[in-house]
Amino acid sequence: MKAWEEKIRKVVPYVPGEQPQKKGIIKLNTNENPYPPAPGVEEANRAFSIDCLRKYPDPTASDLVNALADRYGVRPEQIFTGVGSDDVLAMAFLTFFHSDKPIFFPDITYSFYDVWADLFRIPYERKPLDANFHLNPRDYDAPNGGIVFPNPNAPTGVYEDKSVLEDILQHNADVIVIVDEAYVDFAAGGSAQTLLDRYENLLIVQTFSKSRSMAGMRIGFAIGAPVLIRYLNDAKYSFNSYTMSHHALRLGVAVVSDEAYFQHTIKKIVETREWTKRELAGLGFVFPDSQANFVFASHPAKPACEIFAALKERGIYVRYFPKPRIDNFLRISIGTQREMEQLLQALREIVSDEKICEES
Amino acid sequence: MKAWEEKIRKVVPYVPGEQPQKKGIIKLNTNENPYPPAPGVEEANRAFSIDCLRKYPDPTASDLVNALADRYGVRPEQIFTGVGSDDVLAMAFLTFFHSDKPIFFPDITYSFYDVWADLFRIPYERKPLDANFHLNPRDYDAPNGGIVFPNPNAPTGVYEDKSVLEDILQHNADVIVIVDEAYVDFAAGGSAQTLLDRYENLLIVQTFSKSRSMAGMRIGFAIGAPVLIRYLNDAKYSFNSYTMSHHALRLGVAVVSDEAYFQHTIKKIVETREWTKRELAGLGFVFPDSQANFVFASHPAKPACEIFAALKERGIYVRYFPKPRIDNFLRISIGTQREMEQLLQALREIVSDEKICEES
Repeated sequence: MKAWEEKIRKVVPYVPGEQPQKKGIIKLNTNENPYPPAPGVEEANRAFSIDCLRKYPDPTASDLVNALADRYGVRPEQIFTGVGSDDVLAMAFLTFFHSDKPIFFPDITYSFYDVWADLFRIPYERKPLDANFHLNPRDYDAPNGGIVFPNPNAPTGVYEDKSVLEDILQHNADVIVIVDEAYVDFAAGGSAQTLLDRYENLLIVQTFSKSRSMAGMRIGFAIGAPVLIRYLNDAKYSFNSYTMSHHALRLGVAVVSDEAYFQHTIKKIVETREWTKRELAGLGFVFPDSQANFVFASHPAKPACEIFAALKERGIYVRYFPKPRIDNFLRISIGTQREMEQLLQALREIVSDEKICEES
Repeated sequence: MKAWEEKIRKVVPYVPGEQPQKKGIIKLNTNENPYPPAPGVEEANRAFSIDCLRKYPDPTASDLVNALADRYGVRPEQIFTGVGSDDVLAMAFLTFFHSDKPIFFPDITYSFYDVWADLFRIPYERKPLDANFHLNPRDYDAPNGGIVFPNPNAPTGVYEDKSVLEDILQHNADVIVIVDEAYVDFAAGGSAQTLLDRYENLLIVQTFSKSRSMAGMRIGFAIGAPVLIRYLNDAKYSFNSYTMSHHALRLGVAVVSDEAYFQHTIKKIVETREWTKRELAGLGFVFPDSQANFVFASHPAKPACEIFAALKERGIYVRYFPKPRIDNFLRISIGTQREMEQLLQALREIVSDEKICEES
């Protein structure tokens, strides 16, 4: 190792799901929305004046912030925006998890949490979910430097009732609690937003990448008390003043303004999800009840790694995590009804096949 | 202060130049390019298929990386991309400045350096530029945790010869030296890229925001040895996997592929800069010889703060930094020839006016 190499921050990065460029595949591995963005986005892009690109965008992202504040019935000072919810979460970890005490998150959860903690040298402890992949609020009663979990959880899809969230918030009034709601628009129980008035230390993070079909535009946001948003913005302005491009601002506003399309798309995905659950159960799959745009399923007779490989061979990409407790599960994103029918057809063939999984 | 507030990372953020939304102003305060992006950008935007936004972009940004590698005659493994050069620099600070020893940068320089250092708790020392705003390489001979400076420097516009850079590199083989070349395309002396083969610890950072008229798209990049780019990517993938939107990738490639337009635009700006220098000198302004797309000027008879205010009243925005050593200077971006003629006309009136600067 060279001298200059010694003092470099070394980390083991997060590995995102594959983004295969091949045509004709069925991509159910990164929880993208199978439907295009709201029609207004096309229009906003057509009306976009390229000349404005020579100027910096509004660093406060005020058009988008205002649109989100209107949509969620909060004040603009309660909204923070970033380059996808990963950017928002990274900034929130950096800002709020600045204690010597460990932060807490579930053992089975979004696999970026420990990566951010490692990157920023934040101590952490994983709290095991129960056998049904549910949180035990009592696990979060010890002294800690902050708490973060997704609701619905990823990759399980399990949704925790607001009573559970409130229990955790009540026992952790002295730290920031981040609820990562990337998938909440697909959950019948809805957002923790209703708790914001009572818990100033609650930060909610959401994204345009799933329910709003804009993964490729990179827009995420946080909702919280103005004081939290102020601290987040201080960190953001100390990192990169101009994160949201002109395109993200314009097209983002167009997305938020079409509530009917948003509701319609979600309804279709939820219907397909429920259909998929019934069909998977019919094939013998077991899975926690998902409230997200994916199902986390295991088959008692067929190892997940084998199903994963067999699906890939057929051009169907799902996500497999070779990790303790979940290495016999597949996370299957909800695509169009037609895509899920093709998936089910493939699974029908695969689970009836007798071949044993080989190490690869 | 509430309990949860105690353990929050508190920082004093960078303050970007104003982005006034008023019409009819002359905006010479953030070093934007007065000319629109290459014509191919309009075309690429028109051809953009909105449907692709529902999918995540390529996390490796390979199309843009390949285009840049081709343009700069390096291997793709030598290119890192980010959301503007601020994102690239922030990531580089986080990755490479991880020592207990202080990093070194000039006392007069890009005002984001100390902000990033404070954000990441990196110790630092400012090394005073000489009376002509030049670096003294001997200042950089002490033990340090890394070195960063812009070339040409901001906000002075002063360009250091490659012999100076090489002197610094030779005396600092055990740390990473970052040369921030945001303005290098306007400099006759050119990029430090020619030194890359000999100094594996050299990282060059550039941006699309100035010479390529794409401040609003948020694209920056670094060129360096593959091993440095690998460490940078590890940090990036530990922060946000998908930083470059589909638009940034497509439109970015369109920009890089039009070399003729790029050269033509730079030529116009450099010509206008040289004209502006002559005219400013004629009005009695003094300034270091700028090799950037701005001039850093002071008038012996009229305080900079007064000129700043008088220009703003006339709808002309320039940048004023109320900081030691430079609080009697204005940083004036080079606009179109017509804009600079209007600026000079206004300055002619202002410097002949007798009013004394008031505290505001």
